[in-house]
Amino acid sequence: MNKHALLHIPLYSKFCFFSSNDGVVLRLRVSKENDFESIGIIYGYKYDFYKKQEKAFLRKKFSDELYDYYVIELKLNDVRLSYIFELKLKGKIYYYCEDGVLEKYDFSKAYFNSFQVPYINSIDVHKEVSWMKEAVFYQIFVDRFARGNFDKCDKYIDQKWDDIPTPKTFAGGDIKGIINNLDHIKNLGCNAIYLTPVFSSPSNHKYNITDYYTVDSHFGSNKCLKELIETARKNGIKIVLDAVFNHCGEDMKEWQDVVKKGKKSKYHGWFIINGYKPTKKPLNYECFSSCTYMPKFNTSNKEVQRFLIDISSYYIKEYDIDGWRLDVSDEVSFDFWRNFRRSVKSQKEDCVIIGENWHDASPYLQGDMFDSIMNYAFTKTCYEYFLDKSMNAKGLLERLSKILMNNSTQVNRMMLNLLDTHDTHRFLTLAKEDKNKLICALALCFMHMGAPMIYYGTELEMNGGYDPDCRRAFDWKRAEEKNKTKEVIMSLSELKKREELKSGGIRFSNEDEIFILERFNKNKAIKLYINNSGKDVELKTKGKILCSHNYENNTISSCGFVIEEVR
Amino acid sequence: MNKHALLHIPLYSKFCFFSSNDGVVLRLRVSKENDFESIGIIYGYKYDFYKKQEKAFLRKKFSDELYDYYVIELKLNDVRLSYIFELKLKGKIYYYCEDGVLEKYDFSKAYFNSFQVPYINSIDVHKEVSWMKEAVFYQIFVDRFARGNFDKCDKYIDQKWDDIPTPKTFAGGDIKGIINNLDHIKNLGCNAIYLTPVFSSPSNHKYNITDYYTVDSHFGSNKCLKELIETARKNGIKIVLDAVFNHCGEDMKEWQDVVKKGKKSKYHGWFIINGYKPTKKPLNYECFSSCTYMPKFNTSNKEVQRFLIDISSYYIKEYDIDGWRLDVSDEVSFDFWRNFRRSVKSQKEDCVIIGENWHDASPYLQGDMFDSIMNYAFTKTCYEYFLDKSMNAKGLLERLSKILMNNSTQVNRMMLNLLDTHDTHRFLTLAKEDKNKLICALALCFMHMGAPMIYYGTELEMNGGYDPDCRRAFDWKRAEEKNKTKEVIMSLSELKKREELKSGGIRFSNEDEIFILERFNKNKAIKLYINNSGKDVELKTKGKILCSHNYENNTISSCGFVIEEVR
Repeated sequence: MNKHALLHIPLYSKFCFFSSNDGVVLRLRVSKENDFESIGIIYGYKYDFYKKQEKAFLRKKFSDELYDYYVIELKLNDVRLSYIFELKLKGKIYYYCEDGVLEKYDFSKAYFNSFQVPYINSIDVHKEVSWMKEAVFYQIFVDRFARGNFDKCDKYIDQKWDDIPTPKTFAGGDIKGIINNLDHIKNLGCNAIYLTPVFSSPSNHKYNITDYYTVDSHFGSNKCLKELIETARKNGIKIVLDAVFNHCGEDMKEWQDVVKKGKKSKYHGWFIINGYKPTKKPLNYECFSSCTYMPKFNTSNKEVQRFLIDISSYYIKEYDIDGWRLDVSDEVSFDFWRNFRRSVKSQKEDCVIIGENWHDASPYLQGDMFDSIMNYAFTKTCYEYFLDKSMNAKGLLERLSKILMNNSTQVNRMMLNLLDTHDTHRFLTLAKEDKNKLICALALCFMHMGAPMIYYGTELEMNGGYDPDCRRAFDWKRAEEKNKTKEVIMSLSELKKREELKSGGIRFSNEDEIFILERFNKNKAIKLYINNSGKDVELKTKGKILCSHNYENNTISSCGFVIEEVR
Repeated sequence: MNKHALLHIPLYSKFCFFSSNDGVVLRLRVSKENDFESIGIIYGYKYDFYKKQEKAFLRKKFSDELYDYYVIELKLNDVRLSYIFELKLKGKIYYYCEDGVLEKYDFSKAYFNSFQVPYINSIDVHKEVSWMKEAVFYQIFVDRFARGNFDKCDKYIDQKWDDIPTPKTFAGGDIKGIINNLDHIKNLGCNAIYLTPVFSSPSNHKYNITDYYTVDSHFGSNKCLKELIETARKNGIKIVLDAVFNHCGEDMKEWQDVVKKGKKSKYHGWFIINGYKPTKKPLNYECFSSCTYMPKFNTSNKEVQRFLIDISSYYIKEYDIDGWRLDVSDEVSFDFWRNFRRSVKSQKEDCVIIGENWHDASPYLQGDMFDSIMNYAFTKTCYEYFLDKSMNAKGLLERLSKILMNNSTQVNRMMLNLLDTHDTHRFLTLAKEDKNKLICALALCFMHMGAPMIYYGTELEMNGGYDPDCRRAFDWKRAEEKNKTKEVIMSLSELKKREELKSGGIRFSNEDEIFILERFNKNKAIKLYINNSGKDVELKTKGKILCSHNYENNTISSCGFVIEEVR
């Protein structure tokens, strides 16, 4: 046995997490090289474990490149649990506990070396935001989606709607434009909108905020925002706002006070300044990336924490928003996010918290900070499978397995799965305008565990390279045109309402170059088959075809997919 | 290469933790089977990493049974770090990043798959409690240490001082007795006392508290407690109290209110009761273990959190205590401990928080809950090496390495290393009264990283089996007698003041059956050699002998030790 490969992290980890007030999920990672006859768990009430044990078996659920993952969910009468694993390999029994792998296990010493879930306290259970189960997101970069207000002072608009944008030009999109076009979004099947920032800010992207309490006049007014949220709600659409809490814009009055008064300003400690006054040359204060116009907040400071949490509370209380997407969330203090979450959830339990973490975000996703992140690991996997083809069907299932095993089931169900955003190239452009790739990637995005997100314009098959090119204005002249991408999005959104997609399990497999993803619950199961092999492959489906692309006469051509109802 | 063995958990883990506002410690676990030529880290400022990298090398610091641990501490100019590992084995280079092990690394994609420390926020740095560096603890079970007040109503005392105690008998020890005998403790070299609970409670152990704001009349008064703390402080001795926040005693008025009024009591939600009123038969409420007289607090409840935190604040503010030892800390909610820590540290930064976790406590030791735990993993290791002999010198160094690699350096420096407590057999009794074993184990306990703790009476070579036997009254008739154990404790306490023990590094090795532990800093180094092999072993020391037992004529007999100044 490859003992080195064994991994279980007891308590508060992706290997052991509470699924409910009396439920715990345990995962064990083992080497794929070892073909275990069985992996069991011997468990019991912690204080009696030395004399009384029960046994159950884990099931192999996922495999990545190197490892198999065995999983079990236990429902407990007493939520004080001791346990060890029992592995059977080539007729031999091994016990795995806190002391490592043993050939014999002495239960009289279990109080010292068994694994333990000491107690499940309800407040520590990471609860799912229930509406996220069926959420289909639509992301809007506000200046470029739609203009609705033609009465506003529009002197700031310095590009024609159809122009290729530059980093600093304004096209004139606004919140009224979104309100006017909610039908477009609803017709696609989307039921949630993530808006890039809308608060007062001199830029087109508004990530450098001047006043967090005022909606930017380019975009409308606070009243407009309220109207958007209320109209959206009537249409069954949730609204998630962008919380830019890592940094502000240099025009914010608190920063300006520091610029003027230096250390004498009561806001000096709100920022991280190595000197009496902030200076740009030499740069003596912390800012976002190297953007000196975006001074970084000191989120270790309790006053800053209060200031930012008050902003969040205001928009939850007064506007009843449905969630926050957290900009540059990985650079903000853990301590702040914990306090932030407490505040958000005490006000509105189903207000979702979605971090912008591009890397492993495990520490943020244990239930005390975020619910979810923008799933860029998924995005990258799509690049590798669909675009670079550095990954085949087996590689795809292994990588998706690895990603799923990196977080709890609750988090996986709330992940924001996306192909592109305002911070990336558009997927279609990376795919060299091969729409088949985009369409198949969308199928994967919708069928995977989590909430899919469509970047505005994807339904128009819009192109766009890296920022600012990916932020072109929405081409409303073509909005009514039919195209296959839009058709597939609509069809996938409809599928997303099925119970097995909302709350069912997931498993992967492959048949040679066909990647297979199955979603299932007790009653129903549907399967997605994707062919990205470069050649046609025969695929005989038996069940009802729910959605497909490039699938005809029992042949799935590359690049194509089919979704079949298997029961 | 055994790829399966590689482990690095980026961010907020024992593999990656902040050592200061601009420092981060990175650890990489690899298979011991692989003899790497070098393990490097390629790192850089996160936003530039794709074009600009630096390189440094990790050093192999520890080895356990299966793995080697490579470690580096980086001091950063910019605390936004991207990094990957570069492993050289048999002339071949491997890169280890979030995507696993790669043979080539494409820096242009690093923003997706490098490891990252996104930012070090000062509030997230786990700060050491500085006095813990040189702390030598003395644990007192109050009813059995010393009686100082002979004026008190002593009708409750129902055993003679010298009687073998039963679970429910009272011997009459009190706080005045401790005050009167601080010299005894000080002379041993101890500079910190951990007291089992002192608050109002009907039992001898006082873990079932009736009133958290009143010192029990058996033990004295609140004034006595204040006097103890003030007198101890004058003598350079810190006082750590026992926080019993998992449960209360059934006489507590809030519980009694629930017993009387059931759901109509405003305290019903303070506990976890499955019914209108709590009943013992059938038991319908949660309690500690199966002790129905100790109802468990619902630490998910915000009012309970407030109630308990107020207690903590009161003793910090009014009594200026130096720390809390947290009873049954693993069964209390994470959420509570986080709030508790915030409160404690905002009042008194160097108030130490020590959990009673017998098992892997990693999630509690990331800097947002505890500083330290009672190191029962160390205790068990001493059992296995000194007593069962199921572990030899090499096994000992491997296990101690594993334990150290389970926590951050800060936590390791604050660990409460102990051989026995009121909850275990006395070590000497387990050792079948072989004093050599006890003496050598004490040497290990003092020389290991962390704060050693002596259970009262160890210096008298007291015996005692499991509770209640381990709680016999202190034999003051023998307090002045000389014995080797006491002599060694005094000598080891003196050694503990050396800078290399307070803040130096640690490394382990062995020469056949001799276990070697070295503590060192730039200027000084001392080595502990232990022989527990069962036979005499020649050992030529060159440096000054600082302390020893059973070492003569260049021979260390079993069981014996010697501590040598090597530079």
